[in-house]
Amino acid sequence: MVAADSLKPAADALAGRVVLVTGAHGGLGEAAARACAIAGATVILLGRRVPKLNRVYDAIAAAGGPAPALYPLDLEGATPADYEAMAERIGAECGRLDGILHAAAAFKGLTSIANTPPEDLIRGLHANLGAPLLLTQACLPLLIAAPDSAVVFTLNSTAATTRAYWGAYGIAQHGLRALVAILADEQSSGPLRVHGLQPGPMRTALRSRAWFSEDPARCPPAASYAPACVHLLSAAAGDLRGQVLEVAA
Amino acid sequence: MVAADSLKPAADALAGRVVLVTGAHGGLGEAAARACAIAGATVILLGRRVPKLNRVYDAIAAAGGPAPALYPLDLEGATPADYEAMAERIGAECGRLDGILHAAAAFKGLTSIANTPPEDLIRGLHANLGAPLLLTQACLPLLIAAPDSAVVFTLNSTAATTRAYWGAYGIAQHGLRALVAILADEQSSGPLRVHGLQPGPMRTALRSRAWFSEDPARCPPAASYAPACVHLLSAAAGDLRGQVLEVAA
Repeated sequence: MVAADSLKPAADALAGRVVLVTGAHGGLGEAAARACAIAGATVILLGRRVPKLNRVYDAIAAAGGPAPALYPLDLEGATPADYEAMAERIGAECGRLDGILHAAAAFKGLTSIANTPPEDLIRGLHANLGAPLLLTQACLPLLIAAPDSAVVFTLNSTAATTRAYWGAYGIAQHGLRALVAILADEQSSGPLRVHGLQPGPMRTALRSRAWFSEDPARCPPAASYAPACVHLLSAAAGDLRGQVLEVAA
Repeated sequence: MVAADSLKPAADALAGRVVLVTGAHGGLGEAAARACAIAGATVILLGRRVPKLNRVYDAIAAAGGPAPALYPLDLEGATPADYEAMAERIGAECGRLDGILHAAAAFKGLTSIANTPPEDLIRGLHANLGAPLLLTQACLPLLIAAPDSAVVFTLNSTAATTRAYWGAYGIAQHGLRALVAILADEQSSGPLRVHGLQPGPMRTALRSRAWFSEDPARCPPAASYAPACVHLLSAAAGDLRGQVLEVAA
């Protein structure tokens, strides 16, 4: 566990890098995308809703970072062909890919398995586990071609989510942790680092859906964890290969 | 961790019960199905290959247990509608369901994520994680209507499978463990018990695909773990609610 404010990436930590952020118009995704751009990265903003992606684009442009790219995609319905097409376009238009931050999450709220429509269980597993696996896989050739690259999977606390009513989202969290370990082991000798990032509580729509009796103002904003995202995506995180970094704000 | 031979279910431990076994023509599935029938259960044999299911049927009939039922189904391609139809048929033809043993597993061999066709990753996640989740969900009304019931998820060692090349199977193992915990928490006050069963090494096709340099004769047969399956499916396992039972043969 490290304190969020102990991670202070250099101002140019991601200079010259191309970084893909999923869930780029969500709480952590947007904050991290903006921080990555400020740190010098060309950020590919992946998300479901174009108007929201546009607002993140405008915020980055206004802050004077490298112009980001938009990639509208719905992870719930995306197929291997979609990911292949995405990786091809990134290669063709950006020429490289140095990092992925998986900040997307699909969580509709706490429900028992008995009372969840089976289609929602399938979609929940796919969006939270299958999609990050397939998206990462499609980008592996680009990531391995980079001199130093990183895939960062945002994880929720297993203690908090391995309980009644967390459903497919809670199940997928465990799968993602295993993916971090397995992929890190497979990539242990190459340029690609694989990391988990477990932020503490943060003021997001996801959290308010689960912790509905909590006063959101008492949670730190998602932006508190953005420096941790930049750190893990940068060359400075070389000593954290294969690890899940728990960060407290 | 308990010794396999310390678990000695009563001769009529499953008398009058209806138990569904997935992977019923696989190593552990077949051994467990036969043991369940000997302990008095009407066993529903679920598996992909009808000729193999027929052989298990014949073995059970020859041993004098209650006549089993066959349910041919390919978990890789089964949909929510298939599971709903299955649960309806079990209710209509057997009138009850007192237990499920998830012994099915889909594992083609050790491969890196980079070198696995994405369709195989999807199928692997679905068969090993989505399918047991959906099948269990569809049967919940029947299981909750029984006076004492159990769902048993067979699990592999996470230490062994959270390593390079275990792919979707290794990832799914972690999801299954979370499913045990989440579903057990949700069902903590009803008649349904949720268990994990982690057998030690056993002489199965799955094991020989992963541990290909091992002499299979040095592994105990899958049948060594059949009494543990019967135990968990029986009322005697009331003190193991929500737990993963590790068994060494």
